[in-house]
Amino acid sequence: MGVFVIGDGRMGTIIRELVEADSSLKLVGIVGADTKENLRDAAAADVAIDFSHKDMLPLVEAYVARTGAALVSGVTGYSDEELSRVKALGRGAAVIHSANYSLGVAVLRRLATQAAEALAEFDIEITETHHNQKADAPSGTAKLLLDAVNPEGAYEPVYGREGMCGKRDPREIGVHALRGGTVAGTHTVHFFGPDEEVELTHRATSRRIFATGAVAAAKKLVAREPGFYTFDELMFA
Amino acid sequence: MGVFVIGDGRMGTIIRELVEADSSLKLVGIVGADTKENLRDAAAADVAIDFSHKDMLPLVEAYVARTGAALVSGVTGYSDEELSRVKALGRGAAVIHSANYSLGVAVLRRLATQAAEALAEFDIEITETHHNQKADAPSGTAKLLLDAVNPEGAYEPVYGREGMCGKRDPREIGVHALRGGTVAGTHTVHFFGPDEEVELTHRATSRRIFATGAVAAAKKLVAREPGFYTFDELMFA
Amino acid sequence: MGVFVIGDGRMGTIIRELVEADSSLKLVGIVGADTKENLRDAAAADVAIDFSHKDMLPLVEAYVARTGAALVSGVTGYSDEELSRVKALGRGAAVIHSANYSLGVAVLRRLATQAAEALAEFDIEITETHHNQKADAPSGTAKLLLDAVNPEGAYEPVYGREGMCGKRDPREIGVHALRGGTVAGTHTVHFFGPDEEVELTHRATSRRIFATGAVAAAKKLVAREPGFYTFDELMFA
Amino acid sequence: MGVFVIGDGRMGTIIRELVEADSSLKLVGIVGADTKENLRDAAAADVAIDFSHKDMLPLVEAYVARTGAALVSGVTGYSDEELSRVKALGRGAAVIHSANYSLGVAVLRRLATQAAEALAEFDIEITETHHNQKADAPSGTAKLLLDAVNPEGAYEPVYGREGMCGKRDPREIGVHALRGGTVAGTHTVHFFGPDEEVELTHRATSRRIFATGAVAAAKKLVAREPGFYTFDELMFA
Repeated sequence: MGVFVIGDGRMGTIIRELVEADSSLKLVGIVGADTKENLRDAAAADVAIDFSHKDMLPLVEAYVARTGAALVSGVTGYSDEELSRVKALGRGAAVIHSANYSLGVAVLRRLATQAAEALAEFDIEITETHHNQKADAPSGTAKLLLDAVNPEGAYEPVYGREGMCGKRDPREIGVHALRGGTVAGTHTVHFFGPDEEVELTHRATSRRIFATGAVAAAKKLVAREPGFYTFDELMFA
Repeated sequence: MGVFVIGDGRMGTIIRELVEADSSLKLVGIVGADTKENLRDAAAADVAIDFSHKDMLPLVEAYVARTGAALVSGVTGYSDEELSRVKALGRGAAVIHSANYSLGVAVLRRLATQAAEALAEFDIEITETHHNQKADAPSGTAKLLLDAVNPEGAYEPVYGREGMCGKRDPREIGVHALRGGTVAGTHTVHFFGPDEEVELTHRATSRRIFATGAVAAAKKLVAREPGFYTFDELMFA
Repeated sequence: MGVFVIGDGRMGTIIRELVEADSSLKLVGIVGADTKENLRDAAAADVAIDFSHKDMLPLVEAYVARTGAALVSGVTGYSDEELSRVKALGRGAAVIHSANYSLGVAVLRRLATQAAEALAEFDIEITETHHNQKADAPSGTAKLLLDAVNPEGAYEPVYGREGMCGKRDPREIGVHALRGGTVAGTHTVHFFGPDEEVELTHRATSRRIFATGAVAAAKKLVAREPGFYTFDELMFA
Repeated sequence: MGVFVIGDGRMGTIIRELVEADSSLKLVGIVGADTKENLRDAAAADVAIDFSHKDMLPLVEAYVARTGAALVSGVTGYSDEELSRVKALGRGAAVIHSANYSLGVAVLRRLATQAAEALAEFDIEITETHHNQKADAPSGTAKLLLDAVNPEGAYEPVYGREGMCGKRDPREIGVHALRGGTVAGTHTVHFFGPDEEVELTHRATSRRIFATGAVAAAKKLVAREPGFYTFDELMFA
């Protein structure tokens, strides 16, 4: 299975390493910001993995149109119009775009949704931990998890408790942001019931997980019909 | 919704308390070992919850046949023949039998199966913790979890590691039994991947959870057509 | 070793059970609210364990003065003047008073203090979890832990983070109160450093731990000289 | 405070980076295998941090003797005779040698010893988790922790439980080795008592922690009198 890597920054470099280390994959080529024009005549591949820049979108569109390669896109910062163009590539090829290719986080989201349905009367709380340089709270992933357990917005998030706050309201979800050290990212969804508790945790130790997930997606995508897929559909369906 | 409780031992007593404390439920009656004959003329109920003894099966059969009540059975120790008779009651009433009505454990099993499919290349390990008087290992629940992540028996459990045991075989699943204090039961299924980890934990603090789960099952069962259901089908479908 | 139990409420009853179940102990007697006058002529014991009511203080004082028994007091609600009188009993007998006889919590406090000193540049966060009926936050034990890691008040507690709160200030300690289900009480002190983390956790599953700790204190107290001791001094020195 | 770094391998390189990034430290020089002869005339420093090779010991001895620099040695593989020579350097300079400069692990060991004393009747179990390429079990750190809670060898380690193993023997300590993914190293010491539990955990996410700990030791060592110190004494006394 031939792979073309678009982007030679931090993520592109890790992806190239993963492709080269995987005996079921073959690196067909790689282009970066300085060599992007090479994409015009680049060799065909089964799948292109793109972690480059949104400015390269016209070249990526041309490559997919010309070769029919499947496309795994992790480019961030696209406008709505650009994102529509990426989706439109799904008419002729199997295409996926996601801002987060962590397989474990995708699994956690899916499991959290199911647990919230099955344990409808349990109290839900979410904790997330990140390094001490992170400036916002809660994390983007914690927000995704909040949506996952609260798809209809019936619950209200609470971001801390202090003083005589009274008994817990069954319609609240506590969301707690711990900060410290160099933690790459830990998320837990807690379900507290009568005399029992279910806890779902994801722990990341490196940003490499996003590259790993993109390569895993590429392997699944090549077996699919043309169309635009979400990461969740692709990995679980 | 009327509930008849069969059995007045430890579990039956807790179930009666739960029924009485729940404004959506009405206790129609209760019989125990010493009053079992009362079941012959007992008032009809929407559902009977039976945590009595296998010797009472003929009386339970008669009650269900006469009243059409749904049946939630948590009786243990049935022979295969007796279990077939319980299932046969499903021809005329909605019936469920389970040796474990913990809602959280049922959820954990289901989530573990899905995670094992979605994270097929992750390494799986299971840990369970119970009080220091427990004589067998691993726990019955740990065995259920092992089946949940290994439905086709492709993996081999390993019950401890010591010495120069070599690199981990991808086809093994470590199952670790911790024993200590008065722990009611904690189970974790770990999924270890490249630079990330997913952990699914269930923690019980009391045997009351089995009563709570039986009552929850009763509420769902009364809305069902006659038939024999598993706890998993009932709670999740 | 003879034990006299003062108080026949919930805690007194558990203590009596523990004494009767321990072959190294002998129950000399027990009085409660309705039988308190019996304390005037009650038989001497090596130690009295008092979980009764502050109104019984004069009777307790007289018993200790008359018999010289050591005194383990878990009575709550004493005024400062009454507490001084309890301490004054230490002139003639070995005496301890504490509002919390959990051995594990005492250990956690002591370990947390040491870890905070040894890991002075690590970021500290505290999480505590209690049942959904608890009306105040953080828990009294969490406050004790905060004092344990911050004896000189150099750090400022933060009770939640949301929005663009900026990088973590090294002088803050996040204190997070989770609420849900029937959790008896879980406390964790986290120390986050560069690429490593130390976590100290205490988990209670029942209020019985306070009775267990009082009995353990009684065993240690009988070997001590007259004086007033803290639970921490007694258990660790 | 001037620092001379001996060794330019993986650890030496990280240490140099840490020194350069720390405004309270000044890099005086660095030598590696190819430039080791430069050590003969190298500038004096307040402390030398040595993660080189045992073959460089004579040069290191000469440097310490000539300059009086304190010495933080993390060299592994010394014979007993060589180790004696390192200790002998303590006659003229403050010297420390350790095979593990993780501050968090040192803290965990110390805390575990104290908890084991204070919770003498609790059941102890140890779990450790490492990546799936680790060939031996339990880890060296787990063995250190076992010694920490069992200094007199009164307890017997048990490395797995399966089948009808009977009630837990109070004199056993379960040691459980989990293997999976790319985990850098997690260790937990569990203390299980009646209705309560204390858990002490250390989690490493990178080998950088050994470099960080060596630099922290260097800062403490320069304030000490000549002598040979252990990492534990230095960091906690």
